[in-house]
Amino acid sequence: MGGADGRGHRVVIVGGGFGGLYAAKRLARVPVDLALIDRRNFHVFQPLLYQVATGGLSPGDITSALRWILRRQRNTSVWLGDVTEVDAEARTLRLADGASVPYDILVAATGSTQHYFGKDDWESAAPGLKTVEDATEIRRRVLTAFEAAERNPDRALEDGWLTFVIVGGGPTGVELAGAIAELANHTLRADFRSIDPRRATVLLVEGADRVLPPYPPPLSQAARRSLEQLGVEVRTGITVTDIGPDHVMLGGEGTSEKIATRTVLWAAGVKAASFGDALADATKAPRDRAGRIIVEPDLTVPDHPEIFVIGDLAHFAHSTGEPLPGVAPVAIQQGRYVADVIRRRLAGDTVRPFRYRNKGELATIGRAAAVADFGRLRFSGAVAWLLWLFVHLMYLVGFENRVLVFVQWAWNYVTRNRGARLIAHGWREPN
Amino acid sequence: MGGADGRGHRVVIVGGGFGGLYAAKRLARVPVDLALIDRRNFHVFQPLLYQVATGGLSPGDITSALRWILRRQRNTSVWLGDVTEVDAEARTLRLADGASVPYDILVAATGSTQHYFGKDDWESAAPGLKTVEDATEIRRRVLTAFEAAERNPDRALEDGWLTFVIVGGGPTGVELAGAIAELANHTLRADFRSIDPRRATVLLVEGADRVLPPYPPPLSQAARRSLEQLGVEVRTGITVTDIGPDHVMLGGEGTSEKIATRTVLWAAGVKAASFGDALADATKAPRDRAGRIIVEPDLTVPDHPEIFVIGDLAHFAHSTGEPLPGVAPVAIQQGRYVADVIRRRLAGDTVRPFRYRNKGELATIGRAAAVADFGRLRFSGAVAWLLWLFVHLMYLVGFENRVLVFVQWAWNYVTRNRGARLIAHGWREPN
Repeated sequence: MGGADGRGHRVVIVGGGFGGLYAAKRLARVPVDLALIDRRNFHVFQPLLYQVATGGLSPGDITSALRWILRRQRNTSVWLGDVTEVDAEARTLRLADGASVPYDILVAATGSTQHYFGKDDWESAAPGLKTVEDATEIRRRVLTAFEAAERNPDRALEDGWLTFVIVGGGPTGVELAGAIAELANHTLRADFRSIDPRRATVLLVEGADRVLPPYPPPLSQAARRSLEQLGVEVRTGITVTDIGPDHVMLGGEGTSEKIATRTVLWAAGVKAASFGDALADATKAPRDRAGRIIVEPDLTVPDHPEIFVIGDLAHFAHSTGEPLPGVAPVAIQQGRYVADVIRRRLAGDTVRPFRYRNKGELATIGRAAAVADFGRLRFSGAVAWLLWLFVHLMYLVGFENRVLVFVQWAWNYVTRNRGARLIAHGWREPN
Repeated sequence: MGGADGRGHRVVIVGGGFGGLYAAKRLARVPVDLALIDRRNFHVFQPLLYQVATGGLSPGDITSALRWILRRQRNTSVWLGDVTEVDAEARTLRLADGASVPYDILVAATGSTQHYFGKDDWESAAPGLKTVEDATEIRRRVLTAFEAAERNPDRALEDGWLTFVIVGGGPTGVELAGAIAELANHTLRADFRSIDPRRATVLLVEGADRVLPPYPPPLSQAARRSLEQLGVEVRTGITVTDIGPDHVMLGGEGTSEKIATRTVLWAAGVKAASFGDALADATKAPRDRAGRIIVEPDLTVPDHPEIFVIGDLAHFAHSTGEPLPGVAPVAIQQGRYVADVIRRRLAGDTVRPFRYRNKGELATIGRAAAVADFGRLRFSGAVAWLLWLFVHLMYLVGFENRVLVFVQWAWNYVTRNRGARLIAHGWREPN
């Protein structure tokens, strides 16, 4: 590392998600000495994590080794490591193992993590869905709940084994709720002898007055109808006031209700990943309430033109009034933009502010059900669903992964089976 | 459970591997009340575990949910549980969670586990390959070793990060050694910047005087040549005398050698799974040195015609002189045989002793290299390899899994990539 090759200009990207990876790829032919640092050796295609969580896909199908993706970029090295400290004066990062990494340009792209709004003790009872391990843990909990119900069918309903509560009605919550309802009502239908999985309750709780709040109201209504057709119970205008290992408390206007459940999934909020703290400490950068760093129009940290922040870690509101959402297209466009800024600066060219081009939004609910919002063009149903399938296959990294996911979707569509239903790493007797 | 449906004849199979699963499937239309108990909710296609361990396949590709496989057998229920005790008098099993399960016929098919021949402290330094978790742990160790070498290239060779030792030259050891050599010499070739993965040493150690000892000598020689062409260093007539976290000690005739290595994989021996102890305690059944239960010609335990033992847990030597090997075809044929015995007994028909029909043996070494032994017909090379591919695809449970594995094999063949290279569940800084 460290520009020993004489190229000199050391660019360090922290995080190999959408933002970091697309920045790195765009820098392939730019004469810099590029290092990509991640805690993991792989890129995850996060939009399909919910399918890993519900047994439709394997982690290997939606991940690619970062080294493999970047192997032909001779200016690029990949480092596995956990960045714990930023020295903005010395322009050096420090890793957990003590190594230090100097940079001329730093691109912070470490994304976000679950946000429990101060109730961090809810985390063990209500895992979120940000990593591959989160996904396999959710898969384990969901499948284990049905097993526990089969073992104790008389008390399965009262004890909450067949009640699944998803907190948060954004895209992740909607997708999870739809997939679990399909699992209960179709995939597992014939699998048990003492219980009928179709008696399961899948409850989606959203604090706003409709699901998919960022979408136009007619699409929210279409999404709600699709969810209800799948058997999901949708409750809006309701907040969760407590979560324990065997219950949730729901509160609305003047009401309070206790629901017995053993499976609560958290899709209600995210905050900046912990690297945001180290970066803010070092740069005195302003942050929003979710811990995201409020960036300049060119995605740099104020007074630090050598530090860029992109993706979920960045709060960018210059062209839009409100901050851009934490979705893959924003991260991808910001990653590419930063790569272009770096190239232009080296060439002495001027740089324009970042502008997000919203190409439209898609959210899926389940089998042949999705909603699409392209500004003037808004629609839902099977066509939106086919478009969702197509777009997600195209953005998936690696042709092999595309084929694998396509095969499993086709199979799932025909047989309603979900082939990746193994409970690995810690089947435990439910209690 | 417990024959409440009035059918009365309660058959309990413990273990959902090849033996237990094929017995269960064969009993689909036999009028018994069948329960299959396993600690896991899935069947594993063990012959391909080494490809999961070396990043070629995902666990989901070679596993199928037991409930899904047996969902249409209305006489069959699947129980997740750990059988800890057998009461042969009362004909009852006890599970770890306290539940008791009565049986009229018991089929023990719990398989085998690693055998360290009294050196159980070697286990943490030299994991074996019997479960999905073993496979992902081996994958983690192998990939992490290359990462550690990249981090510390100057000492990578001396410290043993690039030395991989496989103990045992049977089929599993040969397959693992070949796959790791391919990984180092081809798959990872362009991935690193500070080290050349091709400098890795893959060492296969076998105590006998040739690899694949059960095969005819010419095939052992062909396998050895193929391994050496892949870059594996093969040492026969050598035993391992010590294993530590950073070395192995090898001993031969009057010699002793210490080899620095961080990755030792154990493929040298297996013993009966722990359920064998419980069964032997309860029935006073005779056992061999590996803990396998020595069965009667009809695979029953002496003096217990109601208890069958099949697969790796059984020692059967009646027609052959020496015990049958612990391979899938033996377990499958024994599972089917036991199902037929149960059916014939219920019908009042006579029963013949079990006879193993050896349809031939296949072992693969790597890309276009395998050996085949069909008694008079013995051959090696590309034809044997294609036959190996075909047979393994055909025996894989589930059409979806066949397609997924086929796609990945084709991809691997063309690109030499191994797509399932994620280090999940515990990337740790190497030390």
